[in-house]
This record gives sequence, structure tokens and C-alpha cells, in this order.
Amino acid sequence: MTSSSGADLAGALTAEGHTLRIRVYFEDTDFSGSVYHASYLRFLERGRSDFLRLLGVHHTALAADGLVFAVRRMTIEFDRPARIDDVVEVRTSVEELGGASVTLRQGIARGADMLIRATVTVALLSLDGRVKRFPAAIRQVLAANAQPVR
Amino acid sequence: MTSSSGADLAGALTAEGHTLRIRVYFEDTDFSGSVYHASYLRFLERGRSDFLRLLGVHHTALAADGLVFAVRRMTIEFDRPARIDDVVEVRTSVEELGGASVTLRQGIARGADMLIRATVTVALLSLDGRVKRFPAAIRQVLAANAQPVR
Amino acid sequence: MTSSSGADLAGALTAEGHTLRIRVYFEDTDFSGSVYHASYLRFLERGRSDFLRLLGVHHTALAADGLVFAVRRMTIEFDRPARIDDVVEVRTSVEELGGASVTLRQGIARGADMLIRATVTVALLSLDGRVKRFPAAIRQVLAANAQPVR
Amino acid sequence: MTSSSGADLAGALTAEGHTLRIRVYFEDTDFSGSVYHASYLRFLERGRSDFLRLLGVHHTALAADGLVFAVRRMTIEFDRPARIDDVVEVRTSVEELGGASVTLRQGIARGADMLIRATVTVALLSLDGRVKRFPAAIRQVLAANAQPVR
Repeated sequence: MTSSSGADLAGALTAEGHTLRIRVYFEDTDFSGSVYHASYLRFLERGRSDFLRLLGVHHTALAADGLVFAVRRMTIEFDRPARIDDVVEVRTSVEELGGASVTLRQGIARGADMLIRATVTVALLSLDGRVKRFPAAIRQVLAANAQPVR
Repeated sequence: MTSSSGADLAGALTAEGHTLRIRVYFEDTDFSGSVYHASYLRFLERGRSDFLRLLGVHHTALAADGLVFAVRRMTIEFDRPARIDDVVEVRTSVEELGGASVTLRQGIARGADMLIRATVTVALLSLDGRVKRFPAAIRQVLAANAQPVR
Repeated sequence: MTSSSGADLAGALTAEGHTLRIRVYFEDTDFSGSVYHASYLRFLERGRSDFLRLLGVHHTALAADGLVFAVRRMTIEFDRPARIDDVVEVRTSVEELGGASVTLRQGIARGADMLIRATVTVALLSLDGRVKRFPAAIRQVLAANAQPVR
Repeated sequence: MTSSSGADLAGALTAEGHTLRIRVYFEDTDFSGSVYHASYLRFLERGRSDFLRLLGVHHTALAADGLVFAVRRMTIEFDRPARIDDVVEVRTSVEELGGASVTLRQGIARGADMLIRATVTVALLSLDGRVKRFPAAIRQVLAANAQPVR
């Protein structure tokens, strides 16, 4: 079923966080025959954006308040390549929530194989580039989806 | 419903051809606040690839035979911009089928607004860059989906 | 010689308009082994931006005035592919100057071979998307570089 | 001065490794007004490719031998943003050379400001994705450019 809001394009919330299925197209590959390494970052960003979207946090609304999410730090392991026509799944979960940044654990899997593993720290910036504390509403939904310490 | 084949990600065949809904992410925009003009070509290519996919034509199978689709000519009108978080629809139909190339009419719409209109001629090339006649199976499915002359 | 302004990175003005040499990197290619078709549009846009830059027109200054260049229409012929490690040359000349848009003729060559030919119409938009007439200073430099009618 | 080989586009070898100056274009930015985070990875890859190029290692020659460089692991800090029209400098040096991988330290600076810091581990893969030991010629030039342990 389709909807004008596009909510059905935004993947799904899960017990661990969020999943999003993505198709690999021409644009994502390079002459090596596999996906270009920076394309995986685009896939991860789509996962983060759609996770936030399903939590009710929208870039357009933030921008209207002069706020934009920005990646501050990323560690990424490129274990196995994805290829043209593949369908991969981006998995995102909240690892640690601070006052002005959140660290997410992300992976890109193809079936049972984990291809890419990443840890990504994201902050909310004002348009002049200053780190801002999370508004209460954002903080609340992220906290509700953070993994319990084990 | 999801499937391991990802057929549910590939849009839908219609009486006129094919439609594919696409979300606009950070990666698609530029500092003007709208979608970067070359990003629309990526959206159009996803539409063409998924149209072919639903007709049973796969890049991976073609590549195994040493064949790859390539754009030969494109005319594109950028009438209105798409923006972050938008959901747009790529529409593709066969305009004219030749022996070694096919011309497609494509559009990108947001709701009732047509944003982008394009005419795209695509050919099948060997890996050394020569234009090849379409295999009978591909020719047949494209012909079956070509619009009647009016 | 290098400079902090980076003018030496911006190609060269010529009798016909402007040329810019560009290296093909991993990011520009796709799994077919050649340059991805939409990447040529990125190369063409670099040529246009650097042509304007050497004419004294800067995106940052325009943006401060709430103006941004946008592509309105493009016709592009993909005659021959570029490949990884290639150095290509983007050539740009003014074909026709209107009050609120300019049409440029562009090509991408590798040595003596012309790979890509394009005709691109560009306009200046306000941030809310309205076409604006060119400021006198921009109009003047474009007119001075337009080709004489033959 | 220009050359048909394009060596003058490939930046410069330095006592520490390599530097490459890069212009920020429309294509590199996103709607936040700054450079899209994954675009910095494209800049870093250009720096690595041109460092290798000036050391005599070419992707085309490797590919003819069925070999391709691939990123295996990356840690990246996004400290400050670059913006449209900026000229930035990518700096690359060899941190650690193994038998089948090399770890590079990279940075992207704008004038005196370091914007991006990255540590990147790269390996040479066969076309079926297996890690291969470096050929002696590649090993030798990388070792000659590795930083002395202090």
C-alpha cells in the first residue's frame, strides 16, 4: 500500500531500533564492480533519517527552527562488498545518548551476511555551526529507543 | 510485505509503463536547499532499472553476458525543484523502440505537480563499448510495453 | 604555482569561453567500468562554476544576496565514455544570452576525442524559486563572453 | 603549465607524504549549506589515488592485473565544515605498512584550520574479493614514503 506521506518508504521500527531495505543501483557502484565505499555512508544516512522520521523527527521541521543534524565522528568497517541489483538492509540502534549528541550503532546486511559495521556520533547544530542541546521532544524519543545497558 | 528478492522495492507496472516512489535524502540536495540537478538523473535511472527489473531484465544477468545498458542521449526540463523529505514519483514509459536503442519518456512528480520531464535514449553496449542489437527476449518485453501510436 | 584563492584551480578563459581539466576518480565510475552518466553533469557544472568564477561571479556572493544559479533545461549526447584515471577537458561557451537565462554550449573531450556534447540553459533564482533577471554586472560579463553571431 | 598526462593535476609529494588542493562545488554540498559528510570521503579518496599516482601506481594498470584497492576500515572526525567555493587541501601520509594492507593518516584543511581527520586502512583485492599481498613494486614505494617511527 502506498501513502502520500511516504511513511511506507521509511522502513520499520524494531525492538532494537530501525531497519530499512535499500536497492543497489548503478549510481552506487564503481568500476571495481562493487559498491563505492562512500555510498555505504549514504545508505547509513538514509537509515538514520528514516529512523528519526518514524520517531516523529523531521529535517524540514528542524530546519525551520534553524537546526540540522550533522555527523561528528564515524568508525566504519568494510567487511564484504555489496553489488549491483543487491537488496541490503540498514540496521540502526541507539548506543549512547548524551545531552548534545547521540551515538548510533549501524550495520548493512545482505541476508545473513553482515557487510558493513559502523558507529556514528551525530549532533544537532545551529545554522552557524554551533552544537545545540537536543530539544526535549527529540531527547525523549531517542531515550525511549536506546538499548538498555547490559 | 517484504521479500528477499526485493520485488516490493521495485515500484509497479502500470498501463502506461512504470512508477517508482523515491524519498529525497540529505545526499540528494545541495546548498541551494533543493535537490541537486544531477540527482534527478539518478532518480530517473532507478526508475528505468526497476521498470526493466519488473519486466525480467536484470543488470547482473546482462553483465554475465558482457552487456550493459548505457544512456546515449537525454533531454531534460527542470521545471520545479524537489526538497529534503519529499516523496516523489518517477514515471517511465516506452516512447519508441528501435533495433538497438529504446527511447523512454520519464517524469518526476510530487503529488499533482510535475517537477521534471525527460526523454532518454538508452542502448545496450558490449563491454568494449559497441552498440549491440537487443536480444529477442528484451526486445519482446519492451515492445509489449511500448505505447500505441496515436 | 598555488594560491590561497585557488584561482589556479579554476581552469582558463579562452577566446571561445572557458576550459577546465578534470581527473576521473573512483567516485565518478560505475560497475560498467566507465564513468556513470550523471557524473558528466557534475563535470559540466564544475566547468560552468569556474567559468563564472574567473568572470568574477561567485556562488557565495550570490547566495548572500539570496540568489542561486539553477539549470532549467539540458540536452546531452553521450557519444563516448571516459574511464578511470582519464584526464578530460570541459569546454564551455556562451551560446545565447537572454534577460533572465543564459544558454551555454558545453563539451567534454579527451585529447582529440569529443566524448560528451551538451546545451545547458541556466537561470538565476531567488531562494523561493522565482526566476530573477540577471544583475547588470553578471549580464555584462556574460555578454562580453558570448560568441558573435555568424 | 598543463600536460596531456595530467601529472600537474595530481597534487604534490611532500616530506610527510602528499597534498592535493580541491575546490568545493555544488555537487559536494547539501541543504544544510555545508559539504555533505560522505563527500569528504570522496575528497580523501582523490588524495589517496593521486598520492599513489605520483608514486607510479595506477588503477588502470592494477585493474589490468585483476587488482583493485579497497577501503577496509576508516575512522573519521568531522571537526569543522567546508562550504561552497572553498579550496581545501587533502593531506595524506603513510602511518603503517603491513604485508597486505596500508594504514594512511589523512586530513582536510582550509588554510590553518583542520576540518577533517581520518585514519584509513586500504588493501589490495582480487576481482573476486580476496585480499592479496602487495606486489614488491608497490610495497617498495609505500615503504619509502612511510613515516619513521618516533
